[in-house]
Order: sequence, then C-alpha cells, then structure tokens
Amino acid sequence: MINKETALLRLANMSTNQAVITPETAQTPLFAGVDVGGTNIKIGLVDDKGRTLAFQSIETMEELGPADAVRRIKATLHEMLFHVSLTMDDVKAIGLGTPGTMDIPRGMILAPPNLPHWRDFPVRDQLSEVTSRPVAFVNDANAAAFGEFWVGSGRDFRTMIMLTLGTGVGGGIILDGRSIEGEHSFGSECGHIIIDHNEDARCCVWGGGRGQLEAYCSASAVVRRTEEALEAGRKSALTKRINAGEELTSLMIAEKAASGDQLSLDIVLETAMYLGVGIVTLVHTVDPGAVILGGAMDFGGQNSELGQKFLARVREEFQRRAFDVVADHTVIDFAQLGSDAGYIGAAGVARESA
Amino acid sequence: MINKETALLRLANMSTNQAVITPETAQTPLFAGVDVGGTNIKIGLVDDKGRTLAFQSIETMEELGPADAVRRIKATLHEMLFHVSLTMDDVKAIGLGTPGTMDIPRGMILAPPNLPHWRDFPVRDQLSEVTSRPVAFVNDANAAAFGEFWVGSGRDFRTMIMLTLGTGVGGGIILDGRSIEGEHSFGSECGHIIIDHNEDARCCVWGGGRGQLEAYCSASAVVRRTEEALEAGRKSALTKRINAGEELTSLMIAEKAASGDQLSLDIVLETAMYLGVGIVTLVHTVDPGAVILGGAMDFGGQNSELGQKFLARVREEFQRRAFDVVADHTVIDFAQLGSDAGYIGAAGVARESA
Repeated sequence: MINKETALLRLANMSTNQAVITPETAQTPLFAGVDVGGTNIKIGLVDDKGRTLAFQSIETMEELGPADAVRRIKATLHEMLFHVSLTMDDVKAIGLGTPGTMDIPRGMILAPPNLPHWRDFPVRDQLSEVTSRPVAFVNDANAAAFGEFWVGSGRDFRTMIMLTLGTGVGGGIILDGRSIEGEHSFGSECGHIIIDHNEDARCCVWGGGRGQLEAYCSASAVVRRTEEALEAGRKSALTKRINAGEELTSLMIAEKAASGDQLSLDIVLETAMYLGVGIVTLVHTVDPGAVILGGAMDFGGQNSELGQKFLARVREEFQRRAFDVVADHTVIDFAQLGSDAGYIGAAGVARESA
Repeated sequence: MINKETALLRLANMSTNQAVITPETAQTPLFAGVDVGGTNIKIGLVDDKGRTLAFQSIETMEELGPADAVRRIKATLHEMLFHVSLTMDDVKAIGLGTPGTMDIPRGMILAPPNLPHWRDFPVRDQLSEVTSRPVAFVNDANAAAFGEFWVGSGRDFRTMIMLTLGTGVGGGIILDGRSIEGEHSFGSECGHIIIDHNEDARCCVWGGGRGQLEAYCSASAVVRRTEEALEAGRKSALTKRINAGEELTSLMIAEKAASGDQLSLDIVLETAMYLGVGIVTLVHTVDPGAVILGGAMDFGGQNSELGQKFLARVREEFQRRAFDVVADHTVIDFAQLGSDAGYIGAAGVARESA
C-alpha cells in the first residue's frame, strides 16, 4: 500500500496552490470538483469546508472529444481516491465546470469556442453515469466565483461579483449564495457589458462585441492598445524586445510596467480605469458586498507593487463614478484561490445541490 | 350602509387602470399595497391573485413629513376597507414602496431626492405600528417590477428586468421571483449603468453620473438632446411652439414625433438606440427571460404607432449587439399595469414575505 503522506505530497506538488489536508482531518462529506479548460482539466477532492484533499491536473486533449475526457476524468478521480485510501462511495457529489456556451438545465455543453470538438454533448449526465455520482453542472467562471465566495476573498459576503481577467474577461455573480446562471445559461457574462456605445468603440478580438468591457480589458485588448500606442510613436522599452523578435504579450507589458517603463505602466493603469467603469455598472445593477478580481492578468496581484497600483486605480475610478452609498462600502480586492478557484467552486456548487 | 357596488365604482373611478373586483369574487388572503411618490401616494387593496379590490390616490404633501403621511395612509386604508365592508383584520400584510435611498433591512427611508422632508425615518415600522399589520418594505422601482412580474407583462417569466422611463430611468430586477435589493439597498439601479466611459459623455441632469443610461434616456435627457439639436440648427415643428412661449417637454416631443416631425422622431429613435445598448449590458449580466419597458415616457406604449416604432428600434439595437443565444430569445416588451404596477407589486412583495 502506498504511504498516504507521500501520496498526498506527490499530488499536492502537482500544482494546487491550496494547503492539502489529509483524510483524517477532512470534514465529511467529501466532494469532487472538475474544472475543464481549453488546455487542462483540473480535478480536486474537496472536503465539506472547501479544503483540498487531493488535486490532479490532466491534459484536456480536446481533439479526442468529450466522451474520452469524461473517461479520463473518471480514471483520474479513481486514482486520486486510491492514493488517499478512499473510494468513489466517499464522494457525495461531483461539480463540473465548463467554458463556453451551455444549457445548464439539460446538462449540455453546446459550442465552447476553445473546445471545438466538444459540441452538443450531454457532459453532465455522461460524467454522472460513469461515476455513479450526482453531478452539478456550472459555467467555469461562475464556478471560480463560487470558489472565492465559499472559501476565498468573498467568504465574508452574501453577494459578490468576480471578474476573471485573462485571454477574455469572465464573470461570475453570486447572489445570496447562488450564482446567476440566467434563463439561457448566459448569466454573469460580465466581460460583455458595453462601456462605450459609440460606433467607433473598440471591438473584441473575435470581431464582435463593439464597446464591450472585454474589448478594453482582456489580455489581447491590452496587447492591441499597446501596439497602437507604439505605432503612434510612444517610446517604450518594449520596442527593443519586439525588435529582437519577441511576441508582445500582456505578461511582457506587466514586466516592463513593473520595471518602470512609462508606456507599459500607462497601459496597465488605463486597463484599471476601464475596469473601474465596468465595475460601476455591475455594482449599480447588483449591489454586491464585494467585487473580486482574479485571473492570470492581475498584473501580479496583491503581492506585487504593480498589482497594488493596478488595484488602487480600479478603486479610484470606481469611487469617482459610483453613488456614494456603494462607493464607500463596496470592497474591491484580488482573488485568493488562484487557478484552484474553479475546481473548488465546482465542488462547492455540488455541495449546495447535494 | 353604503351600497357596495357604488362604493367600488367610486373607488375604481379614482384612477386605477385595473379591473376592480368585488370582495365576493376576491381570492383571500388580501393584501394592501402602498406606492409613495413625490406627488401622490397610491394605495390599493389587492387579492391573492393580484387583482385590485379598491384603489385610492392621495396627495403626498411631502412637506408635512412622513409621520403625517403614515397617518393618512392608515386613514385611507380604513376608509377603503369600510367601503367594501372589510376591516384591517382582513388584510394579511401591507407592502410599502418608497423612492430614493433607503435601508431595507432596517425599514428606513434615508434621503429620497423627491421627498426632502422624509429623511432618516423608520417608515416601515411606523406604518406597521399604526396598522398593526406586518409591512414589507421595498424600493418603488423594484415594486413596479414585481407587479409586472406577478400579474403584468412579466408573468410568464421566472426572471425579468423592468426599466421605468420617466423623469429619471428606474429599474427593477426580479430573479427567480425575488427582487435584487443589494447589500446596500442599492440593487437594480439600472438607470445608472454606464454606456459611455469617455470624459465627454453626457451627464445626468442632477450633475453627476457621467455616461450613465439616465443621462441619455430620461425625460430631461430627451429634452436636452432636442434643445441641442435645435441650437445646432435642425429644423422642427417644435420651434413654433417654443417661440410661442411653451416649455419644451418630452410629451411635446412625442406628440410632434407622432405627427411626423422628423427631428422629434429622430430623438425618439435615438433614445431607443441608447436604451438598446443599456439592455445589452443588463441582459449579459442577468440573462432574464424578458425586459419590460414602463413609465410615463414610453412614447405612447403598445397602443400607439410611435410606441411601436420606439419598441422596434430598441429591439433592433439589442439584437444587433447582444450574443445570439440571448438576442434571439429575450423578450422585450411594454409593461401592462401602467401606474398601478407600484402598489400591486408592493402588495405582491408583502404576499411573498407573509
């Protein structure tokens, strides 16, 4: 038999940011959370308090289709459970978060842009069938929001909004403990609110969505705005690296902003300004206790000087434009769970549904 | 004893748009709804199916303060009940809708702009004390939305948004049968979403709120945009009436638009365009089944040709900009209850809480 602690450490080292607990200290019942992304599928075993017992990330291999992925999710879950001397019977329910368009009541994934081979597939019921466990189905951004709501930055609030800054801008809204899924499984799409009605407003990189928040604040929007500034003749340390053949990325812009490049810093703070505008709209609509910022494009987050400058500028723009009663009382902060938010939140949604 | 039918007719004639039913055909329990406005307070007796049994509108006389108004609300309720041979014991609960800033959990009206003498007053508990009835407290725009949700245009939907077009732009969001009140009693303030982040965007007439929907779609915004077009040299039949000393109003603009004045029609359709933009933002956030347009500035509503042109333009702009899945399936329509929505909805909220 495998030594439990070694197994746990091995699993823990595979990438979760969360402290991993043992089956002995776990609070039952246990839940599994599955977070499907375009590149990886993150699978976690989570206890009743939202703590991670075991974690595993597998490749999505999306071209093999969803049925194959469902089989590999099941196999990985069994392997993880075996490592901690548990079985599927110890898992009360599974939460499954997927990206893109979906039909939540029917448990269908429809046409996710980053999973072209996963079309019109009954992923919820298939996973339930192979695992013999009830499966709760949730949008991936809503799952991440629920994770932060349950055990992350949002845990002190009844109502919160999470914005996930990355290739796109995702959103999740938790209202009195339930995520806004919408009548057409299209709720909480906070990246697609319009912050500029004008016909010359920016477009999302995928071509649609003129004036939408994502066209200003996504990683690709940040790159495009920087390219435009360079083309307009702004001086920047970025030019040297681009001339050396490097591709301009939002990470590179963040690095240069952190090391004092003025154009890069201007772009970061302008991104914060746009985000502040969008947050005013969301807060005036939902009036949450907190707005949580997560995702890879957080400019270093709470532990970096640049992240703190970014956050300060978001708050400043929000407070300048929002009504006093919300401007003074709505918390705006970074997320805490990093890339674990999705599977933890999916497990949390399963727990709510079980 | 007063003849019941005569009394009912008399009350009915006082202005409700709803069919008035008799105590014999009413479905018990009964509820009272109170809709406090800057000019009038509307009070209705409503049955368990949302039908009006009796209705009365009294002057707010806001300068006499809220305590006086509470006494007059009670007296009016007693009078109405007497006319239909009922007593306060027949009323299970009262719903109270008020405008402006409020603290819903504490039942406090805080600082409503149109009720300057009603500051920091525990209006919910005071009304409950004088009537010996439980009182549910709700924002007036949310109350109107709930009325439409319960028995009006929204009755076939679980989730809906109502926009009230008038001096300002009010909003109410009903999600799975409950209105979004927010953590600071500031939820559903749909008039204050930002549709233009630019520093040269329009301001609300009260001076703040740059770029907010209300700065484009309220009655005063419509008047201001028309004035600007006239100053810029646009020809219009409005000029004659203004030169004759009439004050330009949104009603006058609607009249002229209906009778073929091109500038007036352009202004109406431009208002619809801005509204369509705002609706995209709200629908991408909440994903409701329907968006309902109400309020005095509905350009004639569903029974007028101008109202239909206005609605068609709202839908066109929404469908042009929204994601397919919601563009094709979200209903956008006029409200049905007119100025009765507020007291009926307040009664409905009382019914939900009772």
